[in-house]
Amino acid sequence: MSPFTGSTTATERWHHLRVTRQDGVATVTFDRPEKLNALTFGAYADLRDLLAELSRERSVRALVLGGEGRGFCSGGDVDEIIGATLAMDTAELLDFNRMTGQVVRAIRECPFPVIAAVHGVAAGAGAVLALAADFRIADPTARFAFLFTRVGLSGGDMGAAYLLPRVVGLGHATRLLMLGEPVRAAEAERIGLLSELTDEGKAHVRAAELAARLAAGPALAHAQTKALLTAELDMPLAASVELDATTQALLMNGRDYAEFHAAFTGKRPPEWKGR
Amino acid sequence: MSPFTGSTTATERWHHLRVTRQDGVATVTFDRPEKLNALTFGAYADLRDLLAELSRERSVRALVLGGEGRGFCSGGDVDEIIGATLAMDTAELLDFNRMTGQVVRAIRECPFPVIAAVHGVAAGAGAVLALAADFRIADPTARFAFLFTRVGLSGGDMGAAYLLPRVVGLGHATRLLMLGEPVRAAEAERIGLLSELTDEGKAHVRAAELAARLAAGPALAHAQTKALLTAELDMPLAASVELDATTQALLMNGRDYAEFHAAFTGKRPPEWKGR
Amino acid sequence: MSPFTGSTTATERWHHLRVTRQDGVATVTFDRPEKLNALTFGAYADLRDLLAELSRERSVRALVLGGEGRGFCSGGDVDEIIGATLAMDTAELLDFNRMTGQVVRAIRECPFPVIAAVHGVAAGAGAVLALAADFRIADPTARFAFLFTRVGLSGGDMGAAYLLPRVVGLGHATRLLMLGEPVRAAEAERIGLLSELTDEGKAHVRAAELAARLAAGPALAHAQTKALLTAELDMPLAASVELDATTQALLMNGRDYAEFHAAFTGKRPPEWKGR
Repeated sequence: MSPFTGSTTATERWHHLRVTRQDGVATVTFDRPEKLNALTFGAYADLRDLLAELSRERSVRALVLGGEGRGFCSGGDVDEIIGATLAMDTAELLDFNRMTGQVVRAIRECPFPVIAAVHGVAAGAGAVLALAADFRIADPTARFAFLFTRVGLSGGDMGAAYLLPRVVGLGHATRLLMLGEPVRAAEAERIGLLSELTDEGKAHVRAAELAARLAAGPALAHAQTKALLTAELDMPLAASVELDATTQALLMNGRDYAEFHAAFTGKRPPEWKGR
Repeated sequence: MSPFTGSTTATERWHHLRVTRQDGVATVTFDRPEKLNALTFGAYADLRDLLAELSRERSVRALVLGGEGRGFCSGGDVDEIIGATLAMDTAELLDFNRMTGQVVRAIRECPFPVIAAVHGVAAGAGAVLALAADFRIADPTARFAFLFTRVGLSGGDMGAAYLLPRVVGLGHATRLLMLGEPVRAAEAERIGLLSELTDEGKAHVRAAELAARLAAGPALAHAQTKALLTAELDMPLAASVELDATTQALLMNGRDYAEFHAAFTGKRPPEWKGR
Repeated sequence: MSPFTGSTTATERWHHLRVTRQDGVATVTFDRPEKLNALTFGAYADLRDLLAELSRERSVRALVLGGEGRGFCSGGDVDEIIGATLAMDTAELLDFNRMTGQVVRAIRECPFPVIAAVHGVAAGAGAVLALAADFRIADPTARFAFLFTRVGLSGGDMGAAYLLPRVVGLGHATRLLMLGEPVRAAEAERIGLLSELTDEGKAHVRAAELAARLAAGPALAHAQTKALLTAELDMPLAASVELDATTQALLMNGRDYAEFHAAFTGKRPPEWKGR
């Protein structure tokens, strides 16, 4: 347990997501296949709270996000979210939309890489959750659709208007967010939206392999790489170079850097500690 | 008429551009085909003033920008602009260059999507005007050339050094702005500069179709999507997520979101109001 | 000599790099082929000091960076850098990492274009130095590897987490920096990391040709184009447009802009002064 643990207790059971943990890898599965894994208020809240708990504990070194059944996630449920928000007052609407944004921030800011394993539909909020991940591993059935304008809302939902131009460029991002048309796997790969295109049915396998590899590796180096990628999107060059220098000086005092050198000179593979 | 109308009157006739309006779509045509639509001081000024008027009125929901004759726009006229600026003093030079920058800002900041329909040459300022648009629909004859260094000027004209790296990445942008070499349609598509590559002679048709579709759709959702894409290039993640939350809460109080839900549950197509 | 010369003298001989100068082009060669041009403390320091001297003098209009032997640069030497830093205290570690970051800033901020001619391996710091250049001209043997996490360090070394997402997008950058896997020439070209892919063995020839062309051209226009590309990554649109306007007004008072017009109207090629 982390020394920085206070009075809060760990959640014993997640009701709105399937969560498993093994060897430093957390696997989070959207598990409403009969609804194409449409999101509910509870699923958003669980994602927000789960990522906060995992970030505090520091026991997880990689996280895989995937969907049960025919697809990844079809976004907000038409009845349980769209219908429900129509009855909300302004303060409640703001609370809801802040919560969804907090999930995206939690994915970008948690101290471990997040891998979205995408097959079938990743629509609406489902597309943005995949977009917020560090890696998107998809099979040829994958279909991304940022379809917010199709329901009369802004394409800039949950940070999509911030993230998508930084992943695929402003031109493609404008087209995708403004029109809400589906992006199939081949186009997603061509424009830089995918980290890896796998054979059909293999996105989860490859995602699990990558997560296992990351978890067995120099996890603190991975965490800081992610932190710098996230932070330096918002920083000028001079400050970024200074942050890099202090980060690298810190890690040069760490165990894994010394271990690399010992292993290299000893002609053996390194045994990473993640510290 | 907008309730936020003051004493200024609408311009009755644009002398330096051809402007037509129909069903919420404005079509602006560079109309000096004998000069490959080379820009004059008057054309810049008209673009600046037209976009300001259209933005105030809120009667336009999409704008198409195209060129008459053999190409889109060959940029600043060698005689009427380059020659004329050589006779200007410093204050006049600054006024001229600020005006051209205001046109680019107006394209990025107006509350409706702008679609550049590009065939033939889009050179110099013509290339930057197309770059500032939300969509670039081009046919195989299109040829972009940011040829500012070829006349002894900075490639960073009218925001090009800001916009181009955000559309095609810093590497391609450096090459294009530093060398001023033509980018043909196939390369433009490959590097992410095009929204759509059409059959020859079809850029205007496809641009008009897209404009009509956007104008008939949830126009306020489109406008806010554009506003967020423009603003969030200059904002950090946390602030972007907050802006998205307030924007979405606002639109969830709007007519089109309720209309979507009513249409979906009534199994009929939505009748968008753009509000 | 520049009028802005003080008491410092020019370095007569660079011990850790091979430096030649001809017709406004500086050529800097990593010259430890027996070690795949692994970097030493001295090589970093020489790059930092050389770029500062060249920037003050204003005699250089383009710089080519390449490697002798089988590759471009294999990064920090395992013994002379990794081993040595393991014996350093915190202040020394910070000094070292600040120095490497200063080299990257110098490449981005020097008043002339920098062209990396890449063949064979460009690994670790070698990959970042190539990334910081304005142009990357590579042949099919080129192989980039941001292998920092492989030694237990952050992938965000020397500004890589700032620069790489702005060149190839956040998705590819995350994959490259987090995993440290080699990127071969074909993939590098596909994702926008290359300015030009040459025939085998021709990267240095094409880089020299480009440098000669840039040095013979409107060098002040090139320098300002580079300065704006560098600065505007860190600036909002409105400020960028204002900076562009003042820069262009300045250059419209310069010799090369008038020369272009005189040459154009006289139907002769311009004789660029670079002023």
